[in-house]
Amino acid sequence: MAALKIEDVIYALETPYPDFDIAPGKTALILIDIQKIASPEPFVKAAIKKGLPEKEVKAAIVDYEKRFWKAVDNSAKILKACRAKGIDVVHVRLEAPTKNPLHTAKVNRKIGLIVTPASEECESLPQVKPLPDELIVNKTNGGAFSGTNLDFILRNMDIQSLILVGFLTDECVAATAYHASDIGYDVLLVRDATATHRNEAHEALIWSLDDMCLKVYTTDEVLKKLCKIKSPK
Amino acid sequence: MAALKIEDVIYALETPYPDFDIAPGKTALILIDIQKIASPEPFVKAAIKKGLPEKEVKAAIVDYEKRFWKAVDNSAKILKACRAKGIDVVHVRLEAPTKNPLHTAKVNRKIGLIVTPASEECESLPQVKPLPDELIVNKTNGGAFSGTNLDFILRNMDIQSLILVGFLTDECVAATAYHASDIGYDVLLVRDATATHRNEAHEALIWSLDDMCLKVYTTDEVLKKLCKIKSPK
Amino acid sequence: MAALKIEDVIYALETPYPDFDIAPGKTALILIDIQKIASPEPFVKAAIKKGLPEKEVKAAIVDYEKRFWKAVDNSAKILKACRAKGIDVVHVRLEAPTKNPLHTAKVNRKIGLIVTPASEECESLPQVKPLPDELIVNKTNGGAFSGTNLDFILRNMDIQSLILVGFLTDECVAATAYHASDIGYDVLLVRDATATHRNEAHEALIWSLDDMCLKVYTTDEVLKKLCKIKSPK
Amino acid sequence: MAALKIEDVIYALETPYPDFDIAPGKTALILIDIQKIASPEPFVKAAIKKGLPEKEVKAAIVDYEKRFWKAVDNSAKILKACRAKGIDVVHVRLEAPTKNPLHTAKVNRKIGLIVTPASEECESLPQVKPLPDELIVNKTNGGAFSGTNLDFILRNMDIQSLILVGFLTDECVAATAYHASDIGYDVLLVRDATATHRNEAHEALIWSLDDMCLKVYTTDEVLKKLCKIKSPK
Repeated sequence: MAALKIEDVIYALETPYPDFDIAPGKTALILIDIQKIASPEPFVKAAIKKGLPEKEVKAAIVDYEKRFWKAVDNSAKILKACRAKGIDVVHVRLEAPTKNPLHTAKVNRKIGLIVTPASEECESLPQVKPLPDELIVNKTNGGAFSGTNLDFILRNMDIQSLILVGFLTDECVAATAYHASDIGYDVLLVRDATATHRNEAHEALIWSLDDMCLKVYTTDEVLKKLCKIKSPK
Repeated sequence: MAALKIEDVIYALETPYPDFDIAPGKTALILIDIQKIASPEPFVKAAIKKGLPEKEVKAAIVDYEKRFWKAVDNSAKILKACRAKGIDVVHVRLEAPTKNPLHTAKVNRKIGLIVTPASEECESLPQVKPLPDELIVNKTNGGAFSGTNLDFILRNMDIQSLILVGFLTDECVAATAYHASDIGYDVLLVRDATATHRNEAHEALIWSLDDMCLKVYTTDEVLKKLCKIKSPK
Repeated sequence: MAALKIEDVIYALETPYPDFDIAPGKTALILIDIQKIASPEPFVKAAIKKGLPEKEVKAAIVDYEKRFWKAVDNSAKILKACRAKGIDVVHVRLEAPTKNPLHTAKVNRKIGLIVTPASEECESLPQVKPLPDELIVNKTNGGAFSGTNLDFILRNMDIQSLILVGFLTDECVAATAYHASDIGYDVLLVRDATATHRNEAHEALIWSLDDMCLKVYTTDEVLKKLCKIKSPK
Repeated sequence: MAALKIEDVIYALETPYPDFDIAPGKTALILIDIQKIASPEPFVKAAIKKGLPEKEVKAAIVDYEKRFWKAVDNSAKILKACRAKGIDVVHVRLEAPTKNPLHTAKVNRKIGLIVTPASEECESLPQVKPLPDELIVNKTNGGAFSGTNLDFILRNMDIQSLILVGFLTDECVAATAYHASDIGYDVLLVRDATATHRNEAHEALIWSLDDMCLKVYTTDEVLKKLCKIKSPK
């Protein structure tokens, strides 16, 4: 028999994080940074511009590219289902209020990440394009809660639980997930509707977050949950 | 020649997160959950109580135990150096304000983690025992910023940068690190003064955070930085 | 017929702020700064120490003293009724975490208002002494929400409405009232369970807040509302 | 000799709130709700629509109208001077993110105050029209800090002090002033660049706030302070 691993001890001790209902008026879908600037294209272009060999760069990101576009498709499926069932939708995006660098949060200003307002790079990807009257919350930092009034908006809507999708797992998504669960939201993170450059980092974070402060499900599992909700008239 | 990996592309593109000064009056050392409840002992006891074989449990956590106590020792060294140089110190601890479960944050209440006030398990480990007039900030959730007035206190002290040590890398430390950098603090995370159960999770998070939203250093590197500061009279 | 006054125009236009239910598990009583430092005694002592004539000082504060102690008695009555009905109680008090002035908020530090921890002046007045397991939230600034984790605690308890009593109407009470209603709480301010030095300032604020962002009631009216709640077994 | 009044005792005891420097890069001018919806016109129109006699309504608001437009002119003068000296400017305005009532904060939703996005009523008055690249922060509640990311933006700009102008003294301005000083900003409130319906309420609040948690100055005094700042090249 194989020896006990620390994971086994953790699993044995853990009170699993309890499941919760998804319901219109109580749940919101939060789409995080599903926009041009997060997609692999500008990443490849920048690398080539820096002098890295195009062929090798493209080879290096093949796996990430696949996971990224799969996550976009999955996010789009969940978005469609949420809209059909009357689940509220919030599009969180990187976009500065002005082009003045001082109006971008220090954390991104320091690494030169200023996302010019109304620029192409801050547009939502076409797969998840906001409808009129869907909320758009702009941010200039990582976590969707720490630099915006997202929490204020959600609690004034009486939202209690969140479905999180988007990018990158170990940056904005992780920051948002930790914060959301910490302030009392029931959080559902969709494993294959999020991704990051290195898959090891993605997997490690999913492992850490799951059943510690939130529930992790696949897109298929979430779609099944959404399917059970009665459609609004 | 080995093919380019995605890490190489990221490294080539990255504007590294800039370094910053550590200085008395500007920097605070934040010790996160370095307390009995976070130590391996109660973990082992609980596992044995659950019926897991003692010998195997102990074997399974040998590596974690080593990393945990090393991180405690390193935190104690940094604490000593910070005190000597007049760097402000804040002890953040899991401790409920009362034993009423409703007074513990939902995120921990849901998994049954109620840390009784003034109990043995909420005491700081002896290696990092607070001195009189050092700040103690209690929390009942994960991140040190989202459920406390820590940010309020620090900004009223004009603190601009933080040294983070403590436990667990992928839970309270990560939540605190993402949040701190997001709201504008310069953050230094001490790689070997923090740990978590699975070392892969520790390493993955350090990799993700480093140069994305904060600086990662070793205890030795931090001690060298502290050493250069002129001692107060 | 008397000419129309601007008040009449406002009243005619106003959609009155709607009433709301008070209920155990949903409502919390917030006692603000009902502690020795807020009482008239230290005020008189300080004035005499400054060289003001004792007799005149005492005459000058007669009216305030009467209103203050009436408000304390009214707060005590409401507290008793809330406890009997299982309404949650939070005691908010001025008290610094340490005697280091830097650990007091700038707003009070600037005017020299450092309330030494565990000192006599930060104790609750005997009329409203906290019971074991009642929440005590310390602050070093004015508003009970801006410098504490009070909002975090209340929302994790699923509290939706607040009864506010305490001191001073135009300082900590007003700051707390504006903030509470702004972040979404239903707020009931008890007119004669709060007071401030100048009665004109008290009356003006009550006028401004009433039906703009909260409901104002008298102690008797609140007691009647509490009386209708079924007692817990 | 006249007897001592409680005001005299307060003045004698008070450590006056200390003065502070106004400086580009450190100070921001915050214009609060200087927009069509706050002006007397819609107020008069609504009153007439409700059936109040036009002549009497107009007479009733004559005094308010005068004070309102004086405050707008004064705000415009201060804005012009701030721009000339390189002082940062933030326009805070009532404007909902969408026309869905749930996206307006409860506090205003309850009294039916939904300010339709991009409508005429949410435009800044022409006297204080924002320039391109000046920050605009929308809110759907009262205080400019509690329902927005204004604090986040200002601290990421290293702003330490605020000049407050706008409307109404005893609603959004008071809520903003209490909150700003409570979280550590040095606050300068411009007495005659703000107003509210009833002048007694205006005067009472100015009296309460002055030297308790902020400094009150007249427009002329502020212009003199601004005049002394060296113009940027």
